[in-house]
Amino acid sequence: MPQPAPSSRTRLGRHPERGDFDRGTIDAILDEALVCHVGFVHDGAPVVVPTLHARLGDVLYLHGSPVSRMVTTLAGGCELCLSATLVDGLVLARSVFDHSVNYRSVMVFGRARLVDDPAEKLAALEAFTEHVTPGRWGDARTPNERELKATSVLAVPLDEASAKVRSGPPGDDRVAEGTSVWAGVVPLRTVAGPPEAAVGVPEGSELPVYVEAYLRDHA
Amino acid sequence: MPQPAPSSRTRLGRHPERGDFDRGTIDAILDEALVCHVGFVHDGAPVVVPTLHARLGDVLYLHGSPVSRMVTTLAGGCELCLSATLVDGLVLARSVFDHSVNYRSVMVFGRARLVDDPAEKLAALEAFTEHVTPGRWGDARTPNERELKATSVLAVPLDEASAKVRSGPPGDDRVAEGTSVWAGVVPLRTVAGPPEAAVGVPEGSELPVYVEAYLRDHA
Repeated sequence: MPQPAPSSRTRLGRHPERGDFDRGTIDAILDEALVCHVGFVHDGAPVVVPTLHARLGDVLYLHGSPVSRMVTTLAGGCELCLSATLVDGLVLARSVFDHSVNYRSVMVFGRARLVDDPAEKLAALEAFTEHVTPGRWGDARTPNERELKATSVLAVPLDEASAKVRSGPPGDDRVAEGTSVWAGVVPLRTVAGPPEAAVGVPEGSELPVYVEAYLRDHA
Repeated sequence: MPQPAPSSRTRLGRHPERGDFDRGTIDAILDEALVCHVGFVHDGAPVVVPTLHARLGDVLYLHGSPVSRMVTTLAGGCELCLSATLVDGLVLARSVFDHSVNYRSVMVFGRARLVDDPAEKLAALEAFTEHVTPGRWGDARTPNERELKATSVLAVPLDEASAKVRSGPPGDDRVAEGTSVWAGVVPLRTVAGPPEAAVGVPEGSELPVYVEAYLRDHA
């Protein structure tokens, strides 16, 4: 996989020590984050839309209704920036100033290409399904012609991408002496609650293993 | 609190039934979401940056280093769009096409104002601290002059804001008959793990109640 070099846009001005251009790091964050936020310019002003994404190799796929603002704008080939962020913990320091958040985020700059090829489109739809719930594609009914027409898929190359990561304890050693306030990290994670079966699912139906043991952390 | 009316930008083209312009709904989502994603145009192209926010009444505050790209660009008064998103669950339908995600998101359009007034700035810094960890402000050392200078605060009015919410089971009744695949909702939530004390915190120190019982859900 190509390792993107820092561009003038992905090079970090603040906290350069948190920057990471390793594609393994970038891919892991994109794969774990359920949604990303896509920014583009519409009618001269920025718009930021939360949306699902899925990665296949060096391409990040987005999808939506063919008539949505996001799809019609991005399909025109304008520049976009998307960001996916995982919040891993709260960093409580002795001083307010040194409080922080542990996070892993990815930023991608580029332009999207509307996917025309039916095979690539179907592979992307499988990737969305498996991105959200690994194992689901084989169980659910696959899209028919009408449904395929009602969904547009966009492909964004991962050529200009970067990760930014903060981890570890608060960086407030200089004020630690002589204070008694608790300081440290409160880790956060996403967990699944008890599944809620839809109407029509027979009482006592066995849960698929990917629902029973759903884990967002792909690591 | 003013109820923003739908503007041409916040009016929903897709799934208008998911739109909500009630400030109570908007505020609850902003208050629960730890971070938001701010979009602006820099050097002619969109940039989307994850950042902490905090709401005080009708104003959403952002902050950062005075020399950061986000602060210097937004302080210039350019248009911005920010989005905060909570993912509440996975919606597994019988058909791939009807799969979805339960979410609550807010989109805010506007321009930021650099906060000059020292009292407003301090109130915003308290709001950031309390947004992340309610109860923390009274325990940690408050910012000194040097730290205040190293932090810029931006104020964004909530005049042009909207929420978009999807909840409930999959909408795939038409394909439910005759299929045996499990369908329903897998609820997701953010939970705190065991706190990790920083170096220098005495062994056996009592945890603050806001760490011991940390709950992200403000509802």
